[in-house]
Amino acid sequence: MRDVFIAGVGQTPITKDPQCRGRYLGAAAVKAAIADAGLEPSRIGALYVGNMLSGILAQQQQLGGLIADYTGLAGIEAVTIEAACASGGAAVRVAYQAVAGGIHDAVAVCGVERMTHVERDAVTRALATAADWELEGVCGESFLSLNATLMRAYMDKYGVTAERFAPFAITAHRNALTNPNALLHKALDLETYMNSRIVADPIRLFDVSPVCNGASAVILAAPHVAAELANGPRNGPRVRVAGSALATAPLALARRTDPLDLTAVSSSTQQAMKQAGVGHDDIDLFELHDAYTIMTALTLEAAGFARAGTGLDFADGVRIGLRGELPLATFGGLKARGHPVGASGCYQVAEAFLQLTERADANQVPDAGVALVQNIGGTGATVVSHVLTRED
Amino acid sequence: MRDVFIAGVGQTPITKDPQCRGRYLGAAAVKAAIADAGLEPSRIGALYVGNMLSGILAQQQQLGGLIADYTGLAGIEAVTIEAACASGGAAVRVAYQAVAGGIHDAVAVCGVERMTHVERDAVTRALATAADWELEGVCGESFLSLNATLMRAYMDKYGVTAERFAPFAITAHRNALTNPNALLHKALDLETYMNSRIVADPIRLFDVSPVCNGASAVILAAPHVAAELANGPRNGPRVRVAGSALATAPLALARRTDPLDLTAVSSSTQQAMKQAGVGHDDIDLFELHDAYTIMTALTLEAAGFARAGTGLDFADGVRIGLRGELPLATFGGLKARGHPVGASGCYQVAEAFLQLTERADANQVPDAGVALVQNIGGTGATVVSHVLTRED
Repeated sequence: MRDVFIAGVGQTPITKDPQCRGRYLGAAAVKAAIADAGLEPSRIGALYVGNMLSGILAQQQQLGGLIADYTGLAGIEAVTIEAACASGGAAVRVAYQAVAGGIHDAVAVCGVERMTHVERDAVTRALATAADWELEGVCGESFLSLNATLMRAYMDKYGVTAERFAPFAITAHRNALTNPNALLHKALDLETYMNSRIVADPIRLFDVSPVCNGASAVILAAPHVAAELANGPRNGPRVRVAGSALATAPLALARRTDPLDLTAVSSSTQQAMKQAGVGHDDIDLFELHDAYTIMTALTLEAAGFARAGTGLDFADGVRIGLRGELPLATFGGLKARGHPVGASGCYQVAEAFLQLTERADANQVPDAGVALVQNIGGTGATVVSHVLTRED
Repeated sequence: MRDVFIAGVGQTPITKDPQCRGRYLGAAAVKAAIADAGLEPSRIGALYVGNMLSGILAQQQQLGGLIADYTGLAGIEAVTIEAACASGGAAVRVAYQAVAGGIHDAVAVCGVERMTHVERDAVTRALATAADWELEGVCGESFLSLNATLMRAYMDKYGVTAERFAPFAITAHRNALTNPNALLHKALDLETYMNSRIVADPIRLFDVSPVCNGASAVILAAPHVAAELANGPRNGPRVRVAGSALATAPLALARRTDPLDLTAVSSSTQQAMKQAGVGHDDIDLFELHDAYTIMTALTLEAAGFARAGTGLDFADGVRIGLRGELPLATFGGLKARGHPVGASGCYQVAEAFLQLTERADANQVPDAGVALVQNIGGTGATVVSHVLTRED
């Protein structure tokens, strides 16, 4: 296996525009990423598309070939990768394998999702396909209700109140204020958080990431291609995918030993960090899957940053701020940048790349050298972890 | 890149049973393949699931983690690959990359589809998601109507009659008679074919592959694992994935220069054969994507076995029979074994493996040493080709 580098990234602004079209969103992101890399489009060997809902909500499958065509790459290898909300991260993982293994020298990854062109109930039903339909969906469980179950169980087990979760959301909103691609540009304070309506007890509106549309893309390249580009006009630090891992857990909460223990987070984090040869103290920022504030707490514990029951110790605007001990959601995260489900994993990687190349502007984490990026499908059923490192 | 071998295969009988359940179908196929390989389940590093319709027709996404769990492989890397009807073949392709590139030493691929638990109209609408929804689907086009367009254009251009296509279907039905996993065990003759109803002019019922359920699985292994297994109880010829390629074309017929020219078939066939170092004369059998008889004719031309307009020269029960010049659909093909869409690509590989290991019983192609296997998504939009060779 050879080293894999990120050569460029592209993002479309996240919107709630019901008129946007998936093929153009995806193509715009891929074209932007190719331009950012400074690569000749003809050198892209394959396109891996991460998407969850297009078949259900837009009657459109086979997005690989479709977006390749609209990007001007008709003919190339192209497929869609699906792992619910981890589809974008899983597509990065499959693309990583293709480059690391020597199949292709340069590939594009595109996460794309469109969610606001249908009624909200249709979105809720579609998102529930990420759960175990026979054991959870048929019982009326939604993604919201499953996360409410986890949050209630956590609060009861550890005796914590809802307001303890607020800083995760407040910090994400603060970081999104200066991210031009974020959906939400709205400062949040504790009072507003506490006064927001309870959408599924104990989850408040501001515990939840918003439904939205967007596409993001990443170009992965073999060492010789990355070296060539680094000597060209796109001069700057190179970013290496130093660790890559995907792990799973049973979909249904009822089939897990302890639903508050996200075993696939533990497993994939450990594998990715081991491959990269980094420890927890080396991580300069963590783009985690903050679809719900409870997922942030559980992730910090399972990923080894906090002991079980202490993840909320990180719910502190200073500690997780851009200049803090462990910056989270540095461009707003799923919570405030937005969570176009199958696209989120690619936004995360694109944002971490901007941090490591010192292109994060007002959102810059000082001296960012190592980033952990983690995308989760379902309530912890598919977890993709990547460690990205700046190579000076 | 290192060599990749097929270590074992599994198939569930194809049915129209509306009560079957996807997770158990998939798990049964994977377990059978692991047992066939004689491999310890704990040595499987990843599961790649090919599926097209589960999210739409069964409210279930994230089949990777789900089937891994029900196979007793909870925790391992697992994702779903989607490329419409080429999903199964595309999953084999992604799995091939993981083993060839040194990411995993042994992986499982599972194609699974369930189509008969909903009304026929729902299936027709779901299958139309493989086409370009904005340019074709919204106009009322279905997969049937698009193939009828191609067949009519072909008949008009080359001045051929519908009955010329019959031998493709008749041969497939004949081969399915002795395949215990086939859906259709019904001999077909020209009179029955010609008297069958026209479902979308000029397509007759017997030009079309049936809607059905099924799952098939394949174990891919690195050379050292394959060698170890070959020295164990599962003694016999080894089968190598000598060529692997995936190519795409625009989804909509209107976006192609010549809809009768399946450019992605040409491209992926050439790439796979070049990698394998084989010519057309070396191919002992061709498991092609005979979802419609017109696809067989167009495929034979684009794949280089016949010049444009002469694909029907192969429509001859002797020429494409098990002892003929180019055996097709040796276990019944999509036409008669059945076409559980996202699973078909894995059935094709499993069947070719049985041929190359001389386990095809009554369906055996004598001295089969090289097989070409091709799975198509849409009307030629995604095409996956594999060349499998027997290594004595």
